[in-house]
Amino acid sequence: MGTAEFDLISRIRARIGARGDVVLGIGDDAALLAVPTGMQLVVTADTLNAGVHFPHATTAADIGWKSLAVNLSDLAAMGAVPTWCTLSLSLPQAEETWVDQFLDGFLQLAEPHGIALVGGDTTRGPLSISVTAMGLVEAGTALRRDGARIGDDIWVTGTLGDAAMALHGVLEGAEASASSRLRLDRPSPRVAAGRRLSGLANACIDLSDGLLADLAHVCERSGMGAEVDLPALPASAELQQLDAAARWPLQACGGDDYELCFSAPPTHRELILQAMDFAGVDATRIGRIVPGQGVRALDGGGAEWHPARSGYQHFR
Amino acid sequence: MGTAEFDLISRIRARIGARGDVVLGIGDDAALLAVPTGMQLVVTADTLNAGVHFPHATTAADIGWKSLAVNLSDLAAMGAVPTWCTLSLSLPQAEETWVDQFLDGFLQLAEPHGIALVGGDTTRGPLSISVTAMGLVEAGTALRRDGARIGDDIWVTGTLGDAAMALHGVLEGAEASASSRLRLDRPSPRVAAGRRLSGLANACIDLSDGLLADLAHVCERSGMGAEVDLPALPASAELQQLDAAARWPLQACGGDDYELCFSAPPTHRELILQAMDFAGVDATRIGRIVPGQGVRALDGGGAEWHPARSGYQHFR
Repeated sequence: MGTAEFDLISRIRARIGARGDVVLGIGDDAALLAVPTGMQLVVTADTLNAGVHFPHATTAADIGWKSLAVNLSDLAAMGAVPTWCTLSLSLPQAEETWVDQFLDGFLQLAEPHGIALVGGDTTRGPLSISVTAMGLVEAGTALRRDGARIGDDIWVTGTLGDAAMALHGVLEGAEASASSRLRLDRPSPRVAAGRRLSGLANACIDLSDGLLADLAHVCERSGMGAEVDLPALPASAELQQLDAAARWPLQACGGDDYELCFSAPPTHRELILQAMDFAGVDATRIGRIVPGQGVRALDGGGAEWHPARSGYQHFR
Repeated sequence: MGTAEFDLISRIRARIGARGDVVLGIGDDAALLAVPTGMQLVVTADTLNAGVHFPHATTAADIGWKSLAVNLSDLAAMGAVPTWCTLSLSLPQAEETWVDQFLDGFLQLAEPHGIALVGGDTTRGPLSISVTAMGLVEAGTALRRDGARIGDDIWVTGTLGDAAMALHGVLEGAEASASSRLRLDRPSPRVAAGRRLSGLANACIDLSDGLLADLAHVCERSGMGAEVDLPALPASAELQQLDAAARWPLQACGGDDYELCFSAPPTHRELILQAMDFAGVDATRIGRIVPGQGVRALDGGGAEWHPARSGYQHFR
């Protein structure tokens, strides 16, 4: 840790907000945090590497936003209230402008969610961002992957496939639309939706690797199978322009949606629509939990559809 | 996240220990942890990058050990009991052998300290390891940097300068001794010592960047100055062979010691020696807290000594 690192840390420290439960924040060997009685701690960690998790040309502000967003999305999938996070930032050089812009994006998302940056480090190395996010849930109320039951509806929030369409465009050298690029670079973690699903949903996961791949985790952990009706997948106006052969792979197998996928008993349909309305997001029923194992994707005629490839196959 | 990542995660998951307070570990969107009433949460994050924080030729097992050790050392400096950690591992390829050996070293240190790995991710990218470690302290009892008082003794645990000597050897292409190399590659975080210093020490920090640089943080946070008696710095038998001109820069400015440096009132000298004896480490008085600001390093004759450079100057 050298002079340059101290400068970066003081730049960060000068800009972060305070929370009453941060007894001691950045500036000691570790942060000291007060956990209220009756609450459980929820912890998740995700890393973004240049060229793997975002295109090299992504702006510093977008990287800042996304590095926190992917972690908040995991907290959302547990139904947790975000509280604190740490940030480990590896940078090729100590570039103050880059760090300032990174923090612009990071804090633009951190502030409305009330999450405080309480520690971390800046190191020299290839561009890499590791965030560990913490949140709280009332004991026993966390949403989990392992609670799906036979007969549950399967729901997703928002729309699917836009981020994958933008990434596809970037990789092909084409221009992505502004709206799809926003979905790729500035995903909206569904924290408010996750909070309101506690007590309503039986199982929940966030969609980072593609619907079919992520839903398969819910099935595996719950010991269940699932059927997904592809024509029911919610699509943005832009994606609705594509025919099914082009749209379904993006919606069913594309990653980076950061929507929630959850299962709930049919008796809760009205309550769920109300809860999601309060949370300010749309929710769509896209299938059902069935006996067996694995996920079957069905076209409109009841036949099984097989994607050319399932999920992101690369090591990332 | 692709198939390769799942394999790595399942390899990790199969080997990690359990704790009763881990309600939900690896395998969901986030971990779910029970924090006992009356305890405060202590959180620290540190990253190791190849070629910056360890020589490129360091073994996977040593990297595993050290990536956890530097974080446990921060918990030790707060007087915390280690409880949980997350691990974000960026690897150029999915090399199972490398991961297995990395985990050998990581778990060799994790197990005796009872810390459970509860989350994280493996990603493709240049070799980089980010660990966030969590621990617990009874509310109000954490050791901090800002509590030093005028007249306090300054103490350090163990011996200083061996890791810097080994690193110097590696950088110069010379062979480091096995014992000094062990200090560089396998530092022993002083967790037991930190626990026993709670209630005895007024301020504490772990030594990662060099004694004078780290002690300066204590002075700054406490609004105090410090005097260090260089001839009093504890040295290994190997370092005692060097004359002062060669030894003092390594001991006062070298990094990677991962010993604790703390201040305490002179009335506690006997208690401290007993406590450190119970903790199984030596402790040595090396100076005192004085009015003013900054750290003065004194040679045996009472004159101020100035190192050629203070602390690690590179950005890391």
